[in-house]
Amino acid sequence: MAGMVLDGKAYAKELEGELQARVEQLQKKTGGEPPILATILVGSDPASATYVRMKGNACRRVGMESQSVALPEETTTEELLATIDELNASPRVRGILLQHPVPKQIEERECFDRIAIEKDVDGVTSHGFGRMAMGEAAYGSATPAGIMRLLKRYGIDPSGKEAVVVGRSPILGKPMAMMLLGANATVTICHSRTKNLAEIVQRAEIVVGAVGRPEFIKGSWIRDGAVVVDAGYHPGGVGDIELSAVIDRCSAWTPVPGGVGPMTIATLIAQTVEAAEKAAGIA
Amino acid sequence: MAGMVLDGKAYAKELEGELQARVEQLQKKTGGEPPILATILVGSDPASATYVRMKGNACRRVGMESQSVALPEETTTEELLATIDELNASPRVRGILLQHPVPKQIEERECFDRIAIEKDVDGVTSHGFGRMAMGEAAYGSATPAGIMRLLKRYGIDPSGKEAVVVGRSPILGKPMAMMLLGANATVTICHSRTKNLAEIVQRAEIVVGAVGRPEFIKGSWIRDGAVVVDAGYHPGGVGDIELSAVIDRCSAWTPVPGGVGPMTIATLIAQTVEAAEKAAGIA
Repeated sequence: MAGMVLDGKAYAKELEGELQARVEQLQKKTGGEPPILATILVGSDPASATYVRMKGNACRRVGMESQSVALPEETTTEELLATIDELNASPRVRGILLQHPVPKQIEERECFDRIAIEKDVDGVTSHGFGRMAMGEAAYGSATPAGIMRLLKRYGIDPSGKEAVVVGRSPILGKPMAMMLLGANATVTICHSRTKNLAEIVQRAEIVVGAVGRPEFIKGSWIRDGAVVVDAGYHPGGVGDIELSAVIDRCSAWTPVPGGVGPMTIATLIAQTVEAAEKAAGIA
Repeated sequence: MAGMVLDGKAYAKELEGELQARVEQLQKKTGGEPPILATILVGSDPASATYVRMKGNACRRVGMESQSVALPEETTTEELLATIDELNASPRVRGILLQHPVPKQIEERECFDRIAIEKDVDGVTSHGFGRMAMGEAAYGSATPAGIMRLLKRYGIDPSGKEAVVVGRSPILGKPMAMMLLGANATVTICHSRTKNLAEIVQRAEIVVGAVGRPEFIKGSWIRDGAVVVDAGYHPGGVGDIELSAVIDRCSAWTPVPGGVGPMTIATLIAQTVEAAEKAAGIA
């Protein structure tokens, strides 16, 4: 049987409709100017520029404003920290997105962690990660949080299932593992030092590709009936998983594009709306 | 072959010697009164009282002071938070230990997270957990951090190994998993909702029992040659793992008592010394 398509694009669109209504309510209540999501792009990576533009557009579609800060390639850590400090202090800015990755000379972790936790709508701070992992209120990292929303939407409950996350990056693999654990999956985290990766992936009832290498995870590694989540996106529209080899025998899968990507953006926007509601005292 | 004993008691004693020398150096340099570890015990659980007393004693053995705060069973969250605030503000207090567990009416997480991160020498804050998980400087949760020290001491490198952590508590299972991941193990986290636990434990080259139930993990589940770490302690001197059934065919194991327990205390003390050195500007 062909696996069910986990249609992130369609669900994201639907979520946007709900978010638009919430922003409208918020505006009625507060009467002021719309909340702002500030986006910071450092350097001129075209893919990053596209992502930031898409996030700004989504923001405006739901009735918020976006403030885009573009910094040159040679920006220093100190300059970026100063920008973040300004946005932290800006009263209309309800959320701050620092587009990953930043140029090599910048201490990305230090900059992420400078974002005020109440404005960390992209879920990149260590503090937010820790709170999320401990089951406390926190904005989750947008991509894994978007994946959790998508699974829920399609009635896929990770509880008691074996989940294998391939990749352990700070904003994808690690928070994904902690979120699946929070949803009571038995979670295995694999990475570049993992031996027998194929064998470990074969155990997965839910497999998440979060490794950042095109079609690195082979279809043959994945067992029949698994839920296949591909968080990768590479030129040519391929993900981290060799999807074509598995879509006919898995139970569900996220297309690339149109699966995880739109959910990342929708989650960022949803968390910005939530932050704005909280700031207005209505959430 | 009989497995190597990971002798936490002996190593902890050796560490204490080193810590004593560091405290002496610190005192020479600063000339002031010795740094203080503040311990907070809420209620009258005899095991907890014993642990707190042991920690205070270890503190004094290395030349620091301990300040013990004992609060009644009926203490409220607000009262405990106020105590923590005072200790956070106290200039000689370099570390704060809030003994787990606290009575049920108290929001333990809120209280843990109130501890100033620079005084969180027991590694219980969400913030510290997040920083540790992201590879940033942070005091790790004392028990798993003690286990990592013990493994290192005996030349056991988790890199590339399959590690299975049974238990996902905030101060034991979760940080243990993140520390093993940081040391490049392929980590699986199991818990009460895990199916086929025996089968999953069988995969482990390193197994950590962190479940809090006496001999819950059967020796027969553990493969020959595994490294067996038992973080449990129960009346009668048994741990979470049925050790007697596995010590003859594992490669290494932590005795109960005398394995993980002493390392927990030594790590707490080591982290307090480090905090005192940092506060004095010499670390």
